[in-house]
This record gives sequence, structure tokens and C-alpha cells, in this order.
Amino acid sequence: MNSDPNRLEPFADEARARLQAALQRLLPDPATSASPRLAEAMRYAALNGGKRIRPMLVYAACRLAGGEPERADVAAVAVEAIHAYSLVHDDLPAMDDDDLRRGKPTCHRAFDEATAILAGDTLHTLAFDLLAGSGDYSDAARVAMVRVLCRAAGGTGMAAGQMLDMAAHGRLQDPAALERMHYLKTGRLITASLLLGYHAAERADADLEAALIAFGDAIGLAFQIQDDILDVTADTDQLGKPSRSDEKHGKSTFPALLGLDASRQRAQALCEQARAALDGYGAAARPLQQLADFIVQRTH
Amino acid sequence: MNSDPNRLEPFADEARARLQAALQRLLPDPATSASPRLAEAMRYAALNGGKRIRPMLVYAACRLAGGEPERADVAAVAVEAIHAYSLVHDDLPAMDDDDLRRGKPTCHRAFDEATAILAGDTLHTLAFDLLAGSGDYSDAARVAMVRVLCRAAGGTGMAAGQMLDMAAHGRLQDPAALERMHYLKTGRLITASLLLGYHAAERADADLEAALIAFGDAIGLAFQIQDDILDVTADTDQLGKPSRSDEKHGKSTFPALLGLDASRQRAQALCEQARAALDGYGAAARPLQQLADFIVQRTH
Repeated sequence: MNSDPNRLEPFADEARARLQAALQRLLPDPATSASPRLAEAMRYAALNGGKRIRPMLVYAACRLAGGEPERADVAAVAVEAIHAYSLVHDDLPAMDDDDLRRGKPTCHRAFDEATAILAGDTLHTLAFDLLAGSGDYSDAARVAMVRVLCRAAGGTGMAAGQMLDMAAHGRLQDPAALERMHYLKTGRLITASLLLGYHAAERADADLEAALIAFGDAIGLAFQIQDDILDVTADTDQLGKPSRSDEKHGKSTFPALLGLDASRQRAQALCEQARAALDGYGAAARPLQQLADFIVQRTH
Repeated sequence: MNSDPNRLEPFADEARARLQAALQRLLPDPATSASPRLAEAMRYAALNGGKRIRPMLVYAACRLAGGEPERADVAAVAVEAIHAYSLVHDDLPAMDDDDLRRGKPTCHRAFDEATAILAGDTLHTLAFDLLAGSGDYSDAARVAMVRVLCRAAGGTGMAAGQMLDMAAHGRLQDPAALERMHYLKTGRLITASLLLGYHAAERADADLEAALIAFGDAIGLAFQIQDDILDVTADTDQLGKPSRSDEKHGKSTFPALLGLDASRQRAQALCEQARAALDGYGAAARPLQQLADFIVQRTH
């Protein structure tokens, strides 16, 4: 347990530093790009901070599966590129119409709407280009990683979740429907992050794969419940985006459906369930278990 | 040579019929989709006709490389999904703001803007999901195809070309710059279609690969020149989209830069150059050579 709930063990600092270096290396360089402005917008969207939870899950799962950290670099950048693309598109005026992201103007505010659409599109392509083109992985691993990421991002995941989220404004009163929407929109990519790390290590172990899925599905939901709790309890400065934006957008939230205390209990129970899924793996599972704690204890 | 320049040989009818059946099979079914509306918008965007030139190139190249037509189905759907995604996003109000596409309301007109953004996004993901997930191809071929398609679609291709196109409105007065923009925006995906067909056949032949690239680069440019010519000379009913829309958008065109006659001569010369690239392949190259003729002779 950390004294500062937003502070993770050295593992997380190392993972974030690795990710940052890999992003710098693998994102297009405006100086040599066919469209420098497009490259700038992609870097703006992907390099402006964030908690980096998905890449940390990639690194931690790769380590648990016995892989060296450098094997996880490309997979970590790929999942962060997909995450960044989804944020850029979700923030657009036609979607959530948000002006701030991580305390800075959203991509369409800093550039323009067309550039933001294309920067999102190009981050989306980049993720698959990196996975398919990386000399770090066998062809079989590349194929497995592209498939994992597609299923989490497309019509069976994130994009469908965003459709349900937009369609449901103010009408999603059933906790099961809310969980389903969040599983599609956020949960699948969280679990995919773990599977990317697993495939990056290239050590076949069906039990570990199943344990990572169980862990990921539990923390994915816990993450979203905590997000909803923070939207109610934190202020705009802490969040780096407008607080109470769920309320403003008329979105159903776990605190609104279950109450704040019950939401906290549910997030804590999911965290314990996630930790338990990895109990058999001893000290090697500690970074992932700490990430589970972080997810429900963070204050922004 | 056909009497009707818009009519292709039986090969093309077969390829279009195969594509249509494959699209019906591989696009998500609204009845079983997490978001039925998203699946409907994807089908609307991908199934509403069009010339299907890219899939025809996939089928023809696969045949020339010795592959059976069924080996090309998934690759043909993948490239058409990428093409459909790009049209949906290009038509958006923040980009070209078009109301008509192939004689029907554009996706954001038929549905709404957020749905159109997400339908484009999901067609984009689907292309890679299909290629990576297809049991028709070896892992090596899947990886090769994902890479070919990424390089044609992303920051080294289509998306960069669209950025340059938007940035250049009314200012791109240099034919070389115009060619470069079109190569990125359209040409690379045309050549990628041929390479997808080549990889689908899974017969390594570096000479054939190089010939297909030479053929594709020539017809890609010819295609765009003919598109510009038709925008000036055809009417809205023939095109299924507003004619003279380039002029309306203040876009540089080949007829505006070179004159109409010189544009026609250049398109014809590129067509002959493309045919010549495949001269050594005899009758097996005929479908592709007919496609080259079709591209410069079509009237819509």
C-alpha cells in the first residue's frame, strides 16, 4: 500500500518511462512526415500525459508471463495509440463535445476538427502497423495481437460501447446495462492490454491467459466505477477535465444508480476479486495487484 | 475494348458478385451486434454500390499470381472496408461536407454525425480484424497484408493525402504537388489492392510484385486524373454526387492545371504505361489491363 494513492511502486515509474521513450521513437516525426501537421496532432494527442494504465498493464502482464520489458514496448505503444485515438474522437463536437483533456485543450480545440478526426484515424492505423511490423514478435504473435486489439476496439468493443453510451444518455437506469456498456467501451481494452503483454512474452500458458482475462475484466469495471465516483467527488483541477461532466451530459453513473457508498464497496470488491485471480502467481503478480489497488484508490 | 466504356468483361461481374456476397457475409449483422445501429451504418456505407475498383484489383491480382478467387474474398472486403471508412470520414461536415455519395445521402446524413464517425472507425478496425483473423491465409501472409494496408491508409498514405488536400484548397498550383497529394490519398490504396491480391495467392514472385506496383502506381494516377475530368464534364446524375464539386471546394484539378486535352492525353499515356508493365504475363494479365482501360474510359 502506498501513502499517496496516486503513486505507484518503482515498477510503474519504469513502465511509464519506457512507454514515453517508445512513444517518442514510434510516433511519426513531423520533420519527415508527409503531413507534418498530422504528425504534430498525433503526438499532441498521444504524448500529453494521462495515467498510462493500459501500457502499464501490458508491461506488467509481459513480465508475469516471463518476457523482458523491451518485448512489451511496441504492444504498449499500440494500445496507447488506440486509447488516444478513441479519446480524440470521443471528444469531438459531434460526440461528447469536450474542450479539455488531461488539463489541456482537446485535439480538435488545439488544431481543428478535421485534423483531429484524421489524427485519431491515423493513430488507429498506427497501432496495427506497429504490431504487424514489429521485428520483436513472431508472425503468430503479431497476428494474435492484432486480433486481440481489433476485438477490443471495434464493433465488439469500444466503438459499440461508445454508441450505447451516446444512445443511452439519461435513459440507462439498469446497473446491468450500464456494466455492459462500460465493458464494451472500456473493459475490453483493459483486458486486451493484459493479453497484449501476454502475447508479447510469447510463452503459451492457457491458465495464465485465463487468469489475466479474469483479472482484466474485474479491474476494467472497477476502473469505470472509480471514474464515475471521481466525477462526482473530485474537482476540475484534480481531474484535468471538467468534473461532474457525466451529470452535465445526462449520463447514468454507478453512484447515481447504486449510491456513493455502494459504488465504493463494489469497486473494492472487484479489486479484491482481481487480486485473487492472480493469487497463485506469487511475487511476480505483485505489480498487477498493485495496479488493481491503484485503480480503486486513485483520486484523479 | 467494350462498346460501353462503363461495362467490363465477365471477370468484373464475377468479381463484383463475389465481393457483394463476401461483404454480406463479413460485415456485422445488426440482429446480433452489440450496437445494431452501428452495424446498420457500416452496412449502409459499405453496401451502397460504387465501382468496386479496389476489390476488382484484388481479385485480378490474386488470379494473376495463381490464386483461386475465394482466396481473395477477405482481402477484397478488407480494402473495400478501408475505402468505405475513408469516404464516410471525408464526407463529414468538418471535412468535405458532402450530402450525396453514390446517389444516396452520405452516412452522416442518413444517420447522424457521431454514428458516421464511429461507423467509419469500425469499418477501419474491421479491415484489420478480417485480415488477421482469416483462416484462408498463413500468418506470414496475414502480417504482410495488414502491413500493406496500414502503409496505404495511415500517415504515409490516405490520411496524409487528405490532410494535404484540405490544406491546399485553391493553393496547390504545381502539378507535381497535385500528383503527390493524389498518390498519397488514392494511389497508395490502389497499389495496395494489387499487393493484397498478390499476398492472398501466397506465391512469392518478386518480379510480379514489382510489376504490380508499377501497374498500380500508373493506374492510380490515371484514375484520379479521370476523376477530375469527369467532375468537369459529367453531370450530377451520372456521377451520383454533385458535379463540379472540386470547383465548388476550390480544389486544384488536373484539367485546371494542364487543360482538359492534356489531362486526357496524360491519363491515356498512364493507361498504356500500366498495360505495358504487365506485357510479359500474357492472357492472365488481361483482366488487369482491361481494368486499366476501364479506369480512363469510364464516364462516371
